[in-house]
Amino acid sequence: MRNITEDTITQAVLAAMSGCSDDRLRTVMTSLVQHLHSFAREVKLTESEWAHAINFLTDVGHITDDKRQEFVLLSDTLGLSMLVTTQNNRKPAECTEATVLGPFFVSGAPEYKNGDDISNGASGRPCFVSGRIEGLSGEPVAGAEIEVWQSDEEGNYDVQYVNPDDPKVDFQARGRLQTLPDGRFHFRSILAEAYPIPHDGPVGRMLDALGRHPWRPAHLHFWVKAPGYEPLITHVFRNGDQYLDSDAVFGVRSTLIVDWVEHPAGVAPDGTVMDTPFYTLDYDFVLNPLEHVS
Amino acid sequence: MRNITEDTITQAVLAAMSGCSDDRLRTVMTSLVQHLHSFAREVKLTESEWAHAINFLTDVGHITDDKRQEFVLLSDTLGLSMLVTTQNNRKPAECTEATVLGPFFVSGAPEYKNGDDISNGASGRPCFVSGRIEGLSGEPVAGAEIEVWQSDEEGNYDVQYVNPDDPKVDFQARGRLQTLPDGRFHFRSILAEAYPIPHDGPVGRMLDALGRHPWRPAHLHFWVKAPGYEPLITHVFRNGDQYLDSDAVFGVRSTLIVDWVEHPAGVAPDGTVMDTPFYTLDYDFVLNPLEHVS
Ligand SMILES: [Fe+2]
Ligand SMILES: [Fe+2]
Repeated sequence: MRNITEDTITQAVLAAMSGCSDDRLRTVMTSLVQHLHSFAREVKLTESEWAHAINFLTDVGHITDDKRQEFVLLSDTLGLSMLVTTQNNRKPAECTEATVLGPFFVSGAPEYKNGDDISNGASGRPCFVSGRIEGLSGEPVAGAEIEVWQSDEEGNYDVQYVNPDDPKVDFQARGRLQTLPDGRFHFRSILAEAYPIPHDGPVGRMLDALGRHPWRPAHLHFWVKAPGYEPLITHVFRNGDQYLDSDAVFGVRSTLIVDWVEHPAGVAPDGTVMDTPFYTLDYDFVLNPLEHVS
Repeated sequence: MRNITEDTITQAVLAAMSGCSDDRLRTVMTSLVQHLHSFAREVKLTESEWAHAINFLTDVGHITDDKRQEFVLLSDTLGLSMLVTTQNNRKPAECTEATVLGPFFVSGAPEYKNGDDISNGASGRPCFVSGRIEGLSGEPVAGAEIEVWQSDEEGNYDVQYVNPDDPKVDFQARGRLQTLPDGRFHFRSILAEAYPIPHDGPVGRMLDALGRHPWRPAHLHFWVKAPGYEPLITHVFRNGDQYLDSDAVFGVRSTLIVDWVEHPAGVAPDGTVMDTPFYTLDYDFVLNPLEHVS
């Protein structure tokens, strides 16, 4: 410790943790320090690059608040979120795959009944969503809690409209409902559209410098919970979207790409007479029974 | 990109940077993403650990302001700062070694003449500091700019006393002066004391969880600049300090450990008659000529 050099520094940092009583924390931090140092050595990180990184992280911290989580955006755009999601959600191939939570989930969304319009005034073309929640053996899951959230036709989530001086979220295109005894659910919402992740901050500048765009293909978020099954956080992606091959947060899985079907004006699945064209989406989710969770 | 799994995610992120026109940025980010993902895989980072890390970084960002840089503290305490310093300051063995800048440097320190008291009212036992700046062949470096800063006897830097409502720094124990024609300099200050790095924030909680203390051995910071020589950012450490073997930021190099000599009341080196005991410190710095910088 009195002769720190570029060759001894890593061992010195690891040795300093020898008194850590939390084995898992020591394991995680040992790996983190080794990889952080290996990175700095491998690229021979310069002092000005280090200072640039400190300033970047400071900007990420300062733009982050209750409604905007730039560290999550950073993790998402570097693929870390999707890596953590996939390696913690290994399941039988028949089960619906998980994808990233994303930065736009907020708790406290309103409860709806099947058939309700969850858009609550959000702008967009009408869309009637239905599906079924089932277990690995095809058994219907009654009373499963489904939480859905999506952007409007401008590509914005309700939380992105919040007035900083009056930070109350007016929940739109976001809600919770429960499956019926046959495991089915249905609700009205709006057509999901592609949107750019917030890119007016440091993560947007990073994407720009890397020659990357900030767009995500159109999708509808689902979080499904039912007793006896592993919770499922996923999206359904809209087939045909131009960003399916370049999602800014690397969340696409081919099994989650679905057709949103366009219909002319007429009678909707729930019996509503529509005087404009509308869309339907039908997707079944297969949950992983808890006994299969490793 | 439509089939992201835990095995394909890293390549997908790297492929997304293929349009980056800045070769160095692409090199740095490629290595960063590879090591970040390797870390997450190696420890099989869980979703709750990931969320904990997001919250930790958010806290680091929110406590950081113009006067407190928690990201620098984080880099310092993980040994990254010292690694970056050492690998960017390779020099002939005869030259004075570099160490970390630390988070307490601020620009705009007052200019002093040799012989001045730079403590400017900071509390502490009197200390008379002298030395010589020379080049690799022993040549004196006249007119070198020396910037020094240190904590007071409470272990605080002047910036740590700043009132948030009136954020003006009253520069104490901090100043700039120039070497004389023979390369020598001398000034009065106070005795350097060990101090804990700020540990009332997330980095302090991290150290605590790791079983580490936040203390740094007593030291005096120097930043020496002279035309024709590589700038030198370093400290001089006080011999005998109990934290020399466990510096919280891994900055100690044995060649930088020096005796602060205690003297009884009497005549100080600059002729001042002292009615209390005082200390002297004498240290010569050897600069690296620019032609040796690789
Ligand atoms: Fe989304
Ligand atoms: Fe210091």
